[in-house]
Amino acid sequence: MVRWEPDARGRLEKAAMELYVERGFDETTVAEIAKRAGLTERTFFRHFADKREVLFAGAALLQELLVGAVAAAAADRAPIDAAMDGLVAGGALIQERRAFARRRYEIIAANAELQERELIKLASLSAALADTLRQRGVADLAAGLAAEAAVAIFKISFERWVADPERLDLPQLMRGSLDELRAVTAGSDIEGSPSVTTS
Amino acid sequence: MVRWEPDARGRLEKAAMELYVERGFDETTVAEIAKRAGLTERTFFRHFADKREVLFAGAALLQELLVGAVAAAAADRAPIDAAMDGLVAGGALIQERRAFARRRYEIIAANAELQERELIKLASLSAALADTLRQRGVADLAAGLAAEAAVAIFKISFERWVADPERLDLPQLMRGSLDELRAVTAGSDIEGSPSVTTS
Repeated sequence: MVRWEPDARGRLEKAAMELYVERGFDETTVAEIAKRAGLTERTFFRHFADKREVLFAGAALLQELLVGAVAAAAADRAPIDAAMDGLVAGGALIQERRAFARRRYEIIAANAELQERELIKLASLSAALADTLRQRGVADLAAGLAAEAAVAIFKISFERWVADPERLDLPQLMRGSLDELRAVTAGSDIEGSPSVTTS
Repeated sequence: MVRWEPDARGRLEKAAMELYVERGFDETTVAEIAKRAGLTERTFFRHFADKREVLFAGAALLQELLVGAVAAAAADRAPIDAAMDGLVAGGALIQERRAFARRRYEIIAANAELQERELIKLASLSAALADTLRQRGVADLAAGLAAEAAVAIFKISFERWVADPERLDLPQLMRGSLDELRAVTAGSDIEGSPSVTTS
């Protein structure tokens, strides 16, 4: 006899995120999360494998969406442009969940073990992007570099956006970061652009 | 009464690396490392904090060398070129220790926890490079992207080099990767280069 709990997953997520901010991730127990959500521990474990998964379940979905957009890009899209299609799709999703994204960022920034987990997720995203580009016929080295460049753009744009997610537009920051990366990698090949040095 | 042990550190390192390859990192104990080196556990702990440090002590020195080269680059060097000066200096050092570098790579590739540690080291290298570039007057966004680009070049060039470290030249692979990254990030801004797609 499983009781129907309206939006149990959403209530558990909300309770968990509040507690992680208030008490810290390490100090919060699944029992406390369930209690605050007005549900049982058993219900918690029907939705999440552990308390870390509240923070990282979305990352797996994000990677799927992002990689799917790269795979679906028109065949004549250049590797970096296909990768950017994925980033922009991912950026739009993150932006829809801006309150969650910001809170999640703060919780992870406060905990070394969660930061390690986040680095692993980013490395896994880079590997998945590179594989997808190779399947599109992109040569090995170019695929690896385009994927790493995309993840760098993602990381740096996200860090800028999360400081002010109400005002800033994440996909737009991503496009601006690609322009800046182009200017930066051009380096001594072009005359120093005023955008790369402070006055 | 500390006995003088000629090249104790080198002998411990050699014994540890052999055992990590033969038995796996997790299965090797400090007692076994000391025994194979013909030294005591106490001597081991005078040289290394733990068995993981045998693999990662060099990474700290490498970061110092690399960041030092970036800080010492001529003031008019573009950010990416200053970062490349650091990479090339680091690449030359790794190349001098090619047998160690290759064995270390294999040991880390076989162990998830060590791979996480390596990701953390690379993230720390990126942060140190970005800080050094900022101190050179490079704007925040450009510094972050140049540092991420440099670490991506480092990572991808190293992975290519380690497959055949006797024949390949690491600094040269790094320079080639920067050229490829330039071509890749140019994307749809230039006509598709034959280097970025397979035939």
